[in-house]
Amino acid sequence: MNKQAGTVSPATAASASVSLTAWDEGQMQPRFDTVAKEEPLQIRVGSGGRLIDVAVTMRTPGNDFELAAGFLYSEGLIRSREQIDLISYCVDAAIDSEQRYNIVTLQLRGQLATSLERLERHFAIGSACGVCGKAQLEDLQARGIARIENESCISADVLRSLPERLQDQQRVFAMTGGLHASALFGMSGALEAIREDVGRHNATDKLIGWGLLSEWLPFGEKVLVVSGRSSFEIVQKAAAAGVPIVCSVSAPSSLAIEVAQTFNITLIGFLRGSRFNVYSGAARIV
Amino acid sequence: MNKQAGTVSPATAASASVSLTAWDEGQMQPRFDTVAKEEPLQIRVGSGGRLIDVAVTMRTPGNDFELAAGFLYSEGLIRSREQIDLISYCVDAAIDSEQRYNIVTLQLRGQLATSLERLERHFAIGSACGVCGKAQLEDLQARGIARIENESCISADVLRSLPERLQDQQRVFAMTGGLHASALFGMSGALEAIREDVGRHNATDKLIGWGLLSEWLPFGEKVLVVSGRSSFEIVQKAAAAGVPIVCSVSAPSSLAIEVAQTFNITLIGFLRGSRFNVYSGAARIV
Repeated sequence: MNKQAGTVSPATAASASVSLTAWDEGQMQPRFDTVAKEEPLQIRVGSGGRLIDVAVTMRTPGNDFELAAGFLYSEGLIRSREQIDLISYCVDAAIDSEQRYNIVTLQLRGQLATSLERLERHFAIGSACGVCGKAQLEDLQARGIARIENESCISADVLRSLPERLQDQQRVFAMTGGLHASALFGMSGALEAIREDVGRHNATDKLIGWGLLSEWLPFGEKVLVVSGRSSFEIVQKAAAAGVPIVCSVSAPSSLAIEVAQTFNITLIGFLRGSRFNVYSGAARIV
Repeated sequence: MNKQAGTVSPATAASASVSLTAWDEGQMQPRFDTVAKEEPLQIRVGSGGRLIDVAVTMRTPGNDFELAAGFLYSEGLIRSREQIDLISYCVDAAIDSEQRYNIVTLQLRGQLATSLERLERHFAIGSACGVCGKAQLEDLQARGIARIENESCISADVLRSLPERLQDQQRVFAMTGGLHASALFGMSGALEAIREDVGRHNATDKLIGWGLLSEWLPFGEKVLVVSGRSSFEIVQKAAAAGVPIVCSVSAPSSLAIEVAQTFNITLIGFLRGSRFNVYSGAARIV
């Protein structure tokens, strides 16, 4: 896979400076502060001579190639790094420069791993069948996502240390207070990678895209920690990336727990202070 | 508009009971707890003899008709309650009962307010033009969303009381710790309505759908309070619903601020304790 020269670092930044009025104890004063940037990213796939726009996501600029690659991987549209021939920002000179950095094209070597029909069903046009959590689980299994057999263990002490380690590393969050993070840790608590975004799903896709592009997938013997809650989509992405342990500082949803149980993922919630809850796969904790 | 008899109260609930292992100070014990339910909802529109599946959203069951109506309204696909002839859950006997409550159809009297092409562009297939925040703002203006001229004022003391009032009313959150809320208050701090969901966007669409169906739109002289952050989509929905003041307990994004400034919405962030930040429209606060 080649990265197109000159297009790797976009002109856009992850944060922006704004002026505001701060109210404090009845006093108001003008101030400047930093907020997280939010811009649309259009993910486009080139396959078999066609260009297909598969999704538009509201994201924080940065690690856009990872986001696009991770999204396509975790949604099952590509299955390996080898399928990607080229990742580039829009190179159409007729499009103004700011917009160019909001369109990422993944040129594939071969065909999509799925049909265009399935892709349309996924992102826009649902079909009558399969509109329930159980059907979504079956869909993941039909995509070939396997039950995670890795039985590596992690100590409860290491687990309890992870939220603080995550927060220490959230650089843009520290400036803006407005970003979610998704981070990968080793079983001894060492940070492997962290990605931030206004959306938890995007932060996780960036992390998975990093793994795909740097050939670290599957994430066996690793722990995924996300800020906020664990939703169906977060645990689905973890299953696709082969992560055996998923932690969040807040609550899981019912369907997140079902996905975790189905794919033998250890799912931990309310990881705060000295306590946490284990909703699935407690055997991996010692 | 008629609500189809017998389909108003779905069999599904907003929360579910799960068994888990709680770790606390080195002790582990089995426990039961309540988690927020998460299930897909497919929103289908019947218009001019056709049925069009416009979106699938992961949501917490409950207020599904409001969610569907609010989504279509805040995305600009319908413009008034009068356009809705009937809202119903799926009535296809071939679909099993659980799934039936995950498909809501809005039968329209006339045509969609937008073309099918625009709808496809919105939810799946982006076009090359308009993939930047500025273009998204222009798109909102092109939809006919007007600058909010309502200049009603609110006291800083009332504002500071809203997060606590919101939390007092979050019933499912209190049980699960896993739900976002979106609430509408009057200028004197009286709660008008609150909706909860695993997704902030869904909670806000439920609230707007309630307003549409009960003919309370536009939400002039009201304050919208959302848990979590203010994103582009939240402020966009507020603009569509005509809310002059939007508050969140956390940070806004850059694009949320731009939407607020464009539509003359007072945007307040970090509303916690005795302080808050005003990013737009400070003149409404006294």
